[in-house]
Amino acid sequence: MARIALDAMGGDHAPQATVAGALLAAAELDPSHSILLVGQAERIEATLDALLAGELAALAPHRPRLHVVDAPDVIAMAEKPSAAIRSKPNSSMMVGLRLHAEGQCDAFVSAGNTGAQMAASMVLLKLHEGLKRPAIATIFPTAERPVVVLDSGANVDCAAAELVQFARLGAVYAHDVLGRETPAVGLLNIGEEPEKGDTVSKEAHALLAQSGLNFVGNVEGRDLPAGRSHQAALDVVVCDGFVGNVILKFYEAVAPLMVGLLVKAGFEQDRIMRALRDLDYSEYGGAPLLGVRGISIICHGRSSPRAIKSALKVAVQAVDSRLDEHIGKRLAAPQSGAAA
Amino acid sequence: MARIALDAMGGDHAPQATVAGALLAAAELDPSHSILLVGQAERIEATLDALLAGELAALAPHRPRLHVVDAPDVIAMAEKPSAAIRSKPNSSMMVGLRLHAEGQCDAFVSAGNTGAQMAASMVLLKLHEGLKRPAIATIFPTAERPVVVLDSGANVDCAAAELVQFARLGAVYAHDVLGRETPAVGLLNIGEEPEKGDTVSKEAHALLAQSGLNFVGNVEGRDLPAGRSHQAALDVVVCDGFVGNVILKFYEAVAPLMVGLLVKAGFEQDRIMRALRDLDYSEYGGAPLLGVRGISIICHGRSSPRAIKSALKVAVQAVDSRLDEHIGKRLAAPQSGAAA
Repeated sequence: MARIALDAMGGDHAPQATVAGALLAAAELDPSHSILLVGQAERIEATLDALLAGELAALAPHRPRLHVVDAPDVIAMAEKPSAAIRSKPNSSMMVGLRLHAEGQCDAFVSAGNTGAQMAASMVLLKLHEGLKRPAIATIFPTAERPVVVLDSGANVDCAAAELVQFARLGAVYAHDVLGRETPAVGLLNIGEEPEKGDTVSKEAHALLAQSGLNFVGNVEGRDLPAGRSHQAALDVVVCDGFVGNVILKFYEAVAPLMVGLLVKAGFEQDRIMRALRDLDYSEYGGAPLLGVRGISIICHGRSSPRAIKSALKVAVQAVDSRLDEHIGKRLAAPQSGAAA
Repeated sequence: MARIALDAMGGDHAPQATVAGALLAAAELDPSHSILLVGQAERIEATLDALLAGELAALAPHRPRLHVVDAPDVIAMAEKPSAAIRSKPNSSMMVGLRLHAEGQCDAFVSAGNTGAQMAASMVLLKLHEGLKRPAIATIFPTAERPVVVLDSGANVDCAAAELVQFARLGAVYAHDVLGRETPAVGLLNIGEEPEKGDTVSKEAHALLAQSGLNFVGNVEGRDLPAGRSHQAALDVVVCDGFVGNVILKFYEAVAPLMVGLLVKAGFEQDRIMRALRDLDYSEYGGAPLLGVRGISIICHGRSSPRAIKSALKVAVQAVDSRLDEHIGKRLAAPQSGAAA
């Protein structure tokens, strides 16, 4: 019985995409779950009415499981995060996260201003004991199973000890949400051997080897699309948020480049897109901000209704599997078993 | 009239691939150029004979432009670079680079042990005045024109001032070898704004803005496959060798992942490969180690004859355009114009 708050005003296509995504999720989720649509109530109601009078009419029976929570302000995509969260306490972002902090819902999902969501999540939900920074965990499609990559952009200039914390967070996530029994954790680096890499990587390698995690050593750039290093199939790949962010954005852009070349060569676009569907980020929903007390899921600004739906389902899974509780336990007693 | 030394023993498929590549290059290059095949003379001669008696029989007229230089030792792909170059002064790698250092040839090309090539190039050719480290410049295929990315693996833990030197090296290379008039230089980072990124990136951004280069600001991961940032079409992208190496290896591996998915969906492999030919690294030849006095071109260990041929042609172009002289001038008088 999860109650998920959705920032209905967040994202390039809000509130149309968010409200439509909530309807799609309501239709697929077990009826015990409910969704709070947080934002400008009148616009949300009008959007709901329009969707249910039109393309999503078939979903009308699920309307009662959506609850609108009014939040008059909106944080724009380009606003400075710290200023925005101070000056707009009644924004959908702040109201939604406050509901979560107060226990009135179990998770928060937004496709809005990522920096503001990170800052507001840290201020309102707070970090787990002993953590200095949260990490964004992104699912990378691979030739084998999807891999959790973190940090993919919350932090730069990470210390080796922080990379180890990211590894612990990622391992719990891979266990609880992806169902990996003893997640294999790799360290993104520029060579297989332990002595390879920059100063932080070498130190992180040594710390990870003694971490009690199922550490499978260094992982190179080529291992990410493969989903497998020279050692093992991968579940979690740890890196600084700088390289994680560069490679995430690179990955998102390289598929369109290839599709463009194929279409130019006469291939039929629809067939290609279907064949490459497994690489579509919207299949995998949002990226959780791991390390905060609670569930805060970051979606792409240009999320489609389908992407929002996936993120809401990931949020439910995180709640159902008690991800947050497991992270707390794992950080308090790091050596006690693989996942929780 | 360029004389290019090729490490005939370097690479996973040497000496077959290297000798075949040299024959292909001799057939395409202007007859004024010559190629020195450096390595175990008997094996090279036998390989030449076999190729000219078989699949490359048509290239027999070009045989006289290949000159075999004996070098009895071979540095293996997995040897420790520093130990290898000390203990094997008569290896093909060391002999070829010594010929270049002594002015008996104008450039050196190898698909052998990259670490050994870097170390030997620095020892024998030396660095240009004022440089602390060389950088590997790789050509990235993009949706627009190919872009020079450096450093793609020679250095980690780079200081901001070093990134600026890489930018100068890359700009001269883009001008001389790719023919870009006033090369647009971007800084790989995690956001468009100057204040984004890690400590080194912020400082590098400030230094690049005053460098006299055509600096177009930060470039995100997504801009690389596009070949264009929010500001401009790109010619050169500068980054630390850690992220450069990760993203290069990632790029090389992501195409096979996509091709695999397409083939699984029933597309014809040959047609796909033809459509994606522009993404094939062997089209672009090797990656020069910029900053050493001379031309030292690093090829992929698994280089095909076609890749070796491309690298030899790049070497000729670097000699013909006087790349090394231009780099020296540019480093000595950094503010004097765009390219040399």
